[in-house]
Amino acid sequence: MRRAMLALLWVLSGLAQAEDETPPPRLATADVLAAAVEADWRSPDPADTVYLQLPGGRVVFELAPQFAPKHVANLKRLIRQRYFDGLAILRVQENYVVQWGDPNAAVEQKARSLGDAERQLPGEFFVADRNLPFVALEAEDAYADRVGFVAGFPAAQDTDGGRTWLAHCYGMVGVGRDYASDSGSGAELYVTIGHAPRHLDRNVTLIGRVLTGMEYLTTLPRGKGELGFYTSPDRHVVITSMRLASQIPPQERTRLSVIRTDRPIFRKLVAARTFRREAWFVDPVERLGLCNMPIAVRVSSPD
Amino acid sequence: MRRAMLALLWVLSGLAQAEDETPPPRLATADVLAAAVEADWRSPDPADTVYLQLPGGRVVFELAPQFAPKHVANLKRLIRQRYFDGLAILRVQENYVVQWGDPNAAVEQKARSLGDAERQLPGEFFVADRNLPFVALEAEDAYADRVGFVAGFPAAQDTDGGRTWLAHCYGMVGVGRDYASDSGSGAELYVTIGHAPRHLDRNVTLIGRVLTGMEYLTTLPRGKGELGFYTSPDRHVVITSMRLASQIPPQERTRLSVIRTDRPIFRKLVAARTFRREAWFVDPVERLGLCNMPIAVRVSSPD
Repeated sequence: MRRAMLALLWVLSGLAQAEDETPPPRLATADVLAAAVEADWRSPDPADTVYLQLPGGRVVFELAPQFAPKHVANLKRLIRQRYFDGLAILRVQENYVVQWGDPNAAVEQKARSLGDAERQLPGEFFVADRNLPFVALEAEDAYADRVGFVAGFPAAQDTDGGRTWLAHCYGMVGVGRDYASDSGSGAELYVTIGHAPRHLDRNVTLIGRVLTGMEYLTTLPRGKGELGFYTSPDRHVVITSMRLASQIPPQERTRLSVIRTDRPIFRKLVAARTFRREAWFVDPVERLGLCNMPIAVRVSSPD
Repeated sequence: MRRAMLALLWVLSGLAQAEDETPPPRLATADVLAAAVEADWRSPDPADTVYLQLPGGRVVFELAPQFAPKHVANLKRLIRQRYFDGLAILRVQENYVVQWGDPNAAVEQKARSLGDAERQLPGEFFVADRNLPFVALEAEDAYADRVGFVAGFPAAQDTDGGRTWLAHCYGMVGVGRDYASDSGSGAELYVTIGHAPRHLDRNVTLIGRVLTGMEYLTTLPRGKGELGFYTSPDRHVVITSMRLASQIPPQERTRLSVIRTDRPIFRKLVAARTFRREAWFVDPVERLGLCNMPIAVRVSSPD
């Protein structure tokens, strides 16, 4: 049954040949990418691209305003008033998250002002838009009825398509919050750095995905406190700056492009990842999990 | 349907109360662990426990001889002749693996001798024992028909139970190999440091699981070469030593215990992880993926 479903996926992918007798040419990921044309790539909007500059290097992430419009707008307000510059990485928990914000956020006299940004926002945990361009993946998933991709982001859906939400795969960017579902604002952010913590799905607002620079987060020293919080301000890694790419002169931007998830190329990449053709595999599993599907990023300038 | 299955799991877990009308008390993970008795914990056999000593600290992993007897025996031969001491971390690939071995393994004159250890072994990719004590998890899984745990290790199975194999969850230890399925020996090992690369399941021999010290691997600088290999020997992190715990005086061992996966406590922990009771959750997903189930380790001495 599963094989049949995957075969169908294969046919839909456009790789099937005319002759039914001949198995379609199954390609390795590298071969599919090598055959990609320029239209298969997109350049993220600089107004929706964030640079988190750390002493070690630049982390670049793309925002997903279609999933969290209020949080994205608020985060942009914070970034424009340079809210994050000089704040710090507060938490690095093994196999879980890196989190940053104001070390003094809870100290009324010392907390940095959020300026014209909202102090708290209702959670944007899912969207109810049934017309989202959801590119389904034929995969079993432990946490959702349906999984797939929307405009370059891993996502999940109810069976009836009623709710769609971003999935906590590796490298997703979320909005830290307190106990109340409306206690987040964007002033504290996290990135997932381990096995996808999908139990967080629909419980916290995701706002984007890291495109490059994950290693500047994942190699940070783990916090020794509870939940991986650093126990002393001496340990904090200070944030050099956080900017929208659109605020930066073009020549200083990280030039990158992302594979389109809404074109046939992506179906071919899914097939290549499902049916592994690389010579190393002796017993290809012929299955694929949502968070195991890379969304290729091509960096054409050093970051 | 899924809810019904999970409810059944709940009943089996031994937490159900006598009165059918009353919902069982659902506990948080911390509460279940706090109520654990000594018999719920086990101390891994020192003869099956390995210390990988790096400049940053000690990585402790437990071997799984029931899944890979030949590789485990060969690895022990290598460890006993101090094969790994002074060798190096060769590869750190973001969201994938850390790998170590002999930097000169491919250079005939310079390669370190494997002594009395085998140069290559047939892959031990699965076991065909239908009597394995497989503790099933009621979870959808992208890569296998059934998933669960065997003696403290995450595992997967065919529907008919014909083959059982260790699953590439975060922190699993595997045997690097070349193209041929029998080209591994244990002289090159890897640990998974990102989202579980389950497509490797049944294609490479897994031999154990890291119990503590993951951060000494995950924070290592990423290699800049292809597949995350370091491009220069200057970059290699040198291995101080690799020992079986049984070779070390008891007072120098890392004292730790692991929660038993074959006792009711583990069912309760699975339930706690599935039905999140922590106040933070606003919309508990009530599902659980194989590699999202922690197998608790209690360290009672500093490593």
